[in-house]
Amino acid sequence: MIDLQGDERLDYLLAEKEMKIIQSPTICAFSLDAVLLANFTYVPIKRGSILDLCTGNAVIPLLLSRRSQAEITGVEIQPRIVDMAKRSIEINDLTNQLTVIQGDLKEMPQLLGNGKFDLVTCNPPYFKTAKTEHQNKNDYLTIARHEIKCSLEDVVKACSILTRPGGKVSMVHRPGRLVEILTLFKKYKIEPKRLQLVYPKKGKEANILLIEGIRDGSPDLKILEPLYTFDEDGKYTKEIKEIIYGKRK
Amino acid sequence: MIDLQGDERLDYLLAEKEMKIIQSPTICAFSLDAVLLANFTYVPIKRGSILDLCTGNAVIPLLLSRRSQAEITGVEIQPRIVDMAKRSIEINDLTNQLTVIQGDLKEMPQLLGNGKFDLVTCNPPYFKTAKTEHQNKNDYLTIARHEIKCSLEDVVKACSILTRPGGKVSMVHRPGRLVEILTLFKKYKIEPKRLQLVYPKKGKEANILLIEGIRDGSPDLKILEPLYTFDEDGKYTKEIKEIIYGKRK
Repeated sequence: MIDLQGDERLDYLLAEKEMKIIQSPTICAFSLDAVLLANFTYVPIKRGSILDLCTGNAVIPLLLSRRSQAEITGVEIQPRIVDMAKRSIEINDLTNQLTVIQGDLKEMPQLLGNGKFDLVTCNPPYFKTAKTEHQNKNDYLTIARHEIKCSLEDVVKACSILTRPGGKVSMVHRPGRLVEILTLFKKYKIEPKRLQLVYPKKGKEANILLIEGIRDGSPDLKILEPLYTFDEDGKYTKEIKEIIYGKRK
Repeated sequence: MIDLQGDERLDYLLAEKEMKIIQSPTICAFSLDAVLLANFTYVPIKRGSILDLCTGNAVIPLLLSRRSQAEITGVEIQPRIVDMAKRSIEINDLTNQLTVIQGDLKEMPQLLGNGKFDLVTCNPPYFKTAKTEHQNKNDYLTIARHEIKCSLEDVVKACSILTRPGGKVSMVHRPGRLVEILTLFKKYKIEPKRLQLVYPKKGKEANILLIEGIRDGSPDLKILEPLYTFDEDGKYTKEIKEIIYGKRK
């Protein structure tokens, strides 16, 4: 009954023990970063609409469906991955709440309309790419990780246009891009409001940043308590375990 | 022999057990923020020149003199506080290395020349001020804390003009101003390179930020490990004690 293709597997979706997700090591597998973003972001609880850009195998929509009754739409440019996402949504019986669109995020304002969403989330490609470097290396993972199909500015611009005034934009990225992210947020009228930094362990530099802004908000940034991924024994910290696997009842 | 005026006191300069500093609760007393900045900043060790804007009672020049043999100049706009700073420098026999100028930081490029310093440090006023709010409240502490005599943009602009290409700018401020600081650093060609956040204790938002940039540097921000001021018992953490009182030998 479950249609798995090639090297796809059906994995449990971490804390959501009743949820499953289709993944593949060569095409698309979700990262800790996506799980952290789904935990960090504000969500409208009862109603409204959420858009997840660069949705991949729809891990963020799946996770957010447990926190929100809002309609959630994912956008993914790679048809092969859209297909995985759609099957994961079907497996979890979430076709009433979750939709995935195949397309380019730059074209979404035209397709979906301006200022329609209460929240736009995004786990975009992290790495800048010299034009020539990846032009012949157009595989699934390279497109997910490198700014081949969209630049950071394309992403922030799309987030801004798609979010309603007063709506929120949440993103996960690398600390090395913080200055650029804040500059682009300001340029596209997303006022940065909450920033959280994730450190691999004590004594190390941050390696993940989580940021949330409000469309047309007023300036007042809060920097939340830091998160540490691993303890001194190289195991997940209690706080990360709770985010990944859920709090023990 | 030591000339103390009004409610001034002569305090030990923390970890520097042989150093003393003149302070007053109504005119100028240094904060943890200044001590953290003096600890955080890069310094040229053997030679070169350092400028400290908004120097107050010269706490940062005094602390930096223990890490650097460079010439250190402080700039302070309030003559009463300049007088305190000069006497502290004399008490510590540092008149060969440390100088304090009374003046407006906006006029320093004209007085000191463009691009002359290897490092410019600054612990500026933190609070925006409505023009009317403080116009009749022009006392020493209000001027030190509020943007009455200079705005954040004035400070960053002065730092930029006074630092040589490749030289560094270090500043301490509040996290709520991070977006503005990064925007102004970029505007005035100071590339943000190191950011450190200080949290009052676990579970709280950051309340101090330390930032260092390079004049005309290339983009690559590192976010250093967080510092916590107090432990769960409300006492200084080990890391803060070491910064304030020095490492135990």
